[in-house]
Amino acid sequence: MRLGAFFMPTGHHVASWRHPQADADAGVNFKHYAQMAQTAERAKFDMVFLQDGLAVREAHPEALRRSAQYIANFEPLTLLGGLAAVTTHIGLVATASTSYNEPYHVARKFASIDHMSGGRAGWNIVTSTQKAEALNFGRETHYGHAERYQRAREFTQVVLGLWDSWDDDAFPRDKASGQFLDPDKLHVLNHRGEHFSVRGPLNIPRPPQGWPVLVQAGVSDDARSFAAEFAEVIFSSHLTINQSRTYYGAVKAAVAPFGRSPSDIKVMPGLNPIIGRTAAEADEKLEFLNSLIEPIVAREILSTFIGVDLSGYNFDDPFPEVTPTEKSSGSFHNWVGLAKQERLTIRQLAFRAARGRMSVVKGTPEQIADHMEDWFVNGACDGFNIMSPYLPGAFNDFVELVVPELQRRGLFRTEYEGRTFRDNLGLKHPPSRYAMQHAASG
Amino acid sequence: MRLGAFFMPTGHHVASWRHPQADADAGVNFKHYAQMAQTAERAKFDMVFLQDGLAVREAHPEALRRSAQYIANFEPLTLLGGLAAVTTHIGLVATASTSYNEPYHVARKFASIDHMSGGRAGWNIVTSTQKAEALNFGRETHYGHAERYQRAREFTQVVLGLWDSWDDDAFPRDKASGQFLDPDKLHVLNHRGEHFSVRGPLNIPRPPQGWPVLVQAGVSDDARSFAAEFAEVIFSSHLTINQSRTYYGAVKAAVAPFGRSPSDIKVMPGLNPIIGRTAAEADEKLEFLNSLIEPIVAREILSTFIGVDLSGYNFDDPFPEVTPTEKSSGSFHNWVGLAKQERLTIRQLAFRAARGRMSVVKGTPEQIADHMEDWFVNGACDGFNIMSPYLPGAFNDFVELVVPELQRRGLFRTEYEGRTFRDNLGLKHPPSRYAMQHAASG
Repeated sequence: MRLGAFFMPTGHHVASWRHPQADADAGVNFKHYAQMAQTAERAKFDMVFLQDGLAVREAHPEALRRSAQYIANFEPLTLLGGLAAVTTHIGLVATASTSYNEPYHVARKFASIDHMSGGRAGWNIVTSTQKAEALNFGRETHYGHAERYQRAREFTQVVLGLWDSWDDDAFPRDKASGQFLDPDKLHVLNHRGEHFSVRGPLNIPRPPQGWPVLVQAGVSDDARSFAAEFAEVIFSSHLTINQSRTYYGAVKAAVAPFGRSPSDIKVMPGLNPIIGRTAAEADEKLEFLNSLIEPIVAREILSTFIGVDLSGYNFDDPFPEVTPTEKSSGSFHNWVGLAKQERLTIRQLAFRAARGRMSVVKGTPEQIADHMEDWFVNGACDGFNIMSPYLPGAFNDFVELVVPELQRRGLFRTEYEGRTFRDNLGLKHPPSRYAMQHAASG
Repeated sequence: MRLGAFFMPTGHHVASWRHPQADADAGVNFKHYAQMAQTAERAKFDMVFLQDGLAVREAHPEALRRSAQYIANFEPLTLLGGLAAVTTHIGLVATASTSYNEPYHVARKFASIDHMSGGRAGWNIVTSTQKAEALNFGRETHYGHAERYQRAREFTQVVLGLWDSWDDDAFPRDKASGQFLDPDKLHVLNHRGEHFSVRGPLNIPRPPQGWPVLVQAGVSDDARSFAAEFAEVIFSSHLTINQSRTYYGAVKAAVAPFGRSPSDIKVMPGLNPIIGRTAAEADEKLEFLNSLIEPIVAREILSTFIGVDLSGYNFDDPFPEVTPTEKSSGSFHNWVGLAKQERLTIRQLAFRAARGRMSVVKGTPEQIADHMEDWFVNGACDGFNIMSPYLPGAFNDFVELVVPELQRRGLFRTEYEGRTFRDNLGLKHPPSRYAMQHAASG
């Protein structure tokens, strides 16, 4: 079983920052991240996972006032550089967008982290979807869905090509003979595509892992097709074992046309554990967390879900008649239907939305481990990305209580198997495209 | 006196990588940088300084084979993230180009380093000049000189504006009241300029230093005008005390029109020390270093200086009749004239160029300290950026032999004065533009 530690600054619950066992200043507190990464490493986690966005979240000022998520935090690649310096074994995954970056910069930075960490970098490949992000990069509108994925595909191809600029053994650095590098092992990419023209070569040696591990999330058809071609780790989000099994089977089957085998791609759904020493304690913990949610924050989450501004209504009015807007998604009718069916007020529906935003697995360490074992042994996943509700407290609980139970059951490692992130995940070292050409022609 | 440690991977001498006391793999060896940064910190240096470029150096393959400089190394901002994690006091300066970057990314990354390090980041602001760099970012040609500086100016203004997105006290993070941030202390930049449109706000709190320290090099008129407006540290390159005094006076006078005072800008020329326990030992050390230069590397340096390809000639032919090309700079006539005057062969002139590439101050620790004291007390500089010829060996020598001599003379600190890089340099915490507006209107 693979385990990732997805560190949102204060935690994944919307009110996490108010929890007594959360570091409210986590977003710019390096010690917070360093200690959690070291804790994850002591527990033999495969990876630390960092999300990213390129704008301050848009929200009503009074909701913003009471919110901590997606607002103002460390930039993940500089943070990853710091975490590389204070850890030894654990994989280090950061998110970088293909929409508002240059492939040369992204290839170079992840290669740099891979060298700094001795082969532990991973790139979570995303496309940017917010207008607020576009506006920070000289555009009036964000890219449409299809264009985003076309750009992502070309971007990733360029990055992979740049990582192959130098063969693995291009640098003899022989002081006696005076040969620092072998120019025959240098390759110029000369990419000219629809979105990018990048000559190369990359000005850093090939990463120790060949390529940093490619991670991907996203459930649209475009995202799934992208994942089948490129992803080595998929961060998925299915809520039931049956959904996840169906997805798992489809993903593992989809890689074959790209010359890949099912073991080349690891499916890791997100898991939100609420851990109590007893089931009742777990219930209490969740109730306490939910009690920290401010109504205005809950209403804003509901507004985001349905794409409708609700700030003109009273909290305790019956949920009003509203019509979809261009911001509304498929879940509009689910939420509005629920309000009608159960005759809910705005406040009631808003709290349903805020609490339900995060699916949770709740119970004793044994119950959490049962859930994980069930999914893992029944073909629903290769592991989990642990999304602790508040940090560092809830992650420490997971490490102290659930990880030993998984180890007792023989489901999770007690020592790292290999030297690199790729080794520990059981992924191959990708040969350079030029080495493959050479082998084919030789 | 301020001291910077300019760490080229293996050192500043063109043949440094072959020296027994150089780490040949320095370019991708994090321990090498971590240990040197810690050494610099023990010696109370103000800063570590990292250069950057966005392409592999263009060179004849046989010269490239024997070269280590400007080819394949760490990306400096990810490296700086790592150095932030293993140091406590020293300033951390990395270079980032305004030509092939987005201001939102640059503002965010330096703010992130500033938070990670508790207020120790600095940004060396450069423009990119190589065609090879343009080709990695979708352009056929690099920007012209004037356009580069116009872009740099607007880029810097945007970055400064983004750093002011949040007031210093915008985040109360009060768990009891539920107030995480104060939306009245959030400012939207709404920049629309000739080169950039950036709405903001930046998605990270204001850096602990207000702004990371702004560093600048470059001697053209455009560069000097840019420095007068923005630079807080100037990395200069004058070879004689008189040149540097003239420059120092001019720089300090040039800041007044921008409402700045002479103490707001620190002039730190580069210094290349060759240190022996005796003067003769210093001579020997330099001779040994120069003996490591390969003829083909020397010829390539000469070719770069004069803008003429010399690979078609024999090394021991008299220097040929050549005419300037579009790559030739003002030094063409100096070098060609020298060859004629002294009737030099290509080999002889090439070694003059390769050895002379780096101006050196050579002698005993006392002689080096004499030189530094002379410049410092006679108004030629505020300190030096130490460019050790090979690393880590020569930097360790400087720390062990020269720094104690400077301290004995009362020229250099024995303890850090403050908490931040800015504190130690004696620079003010810049108030936010919005705080100033508020004060003016209040």
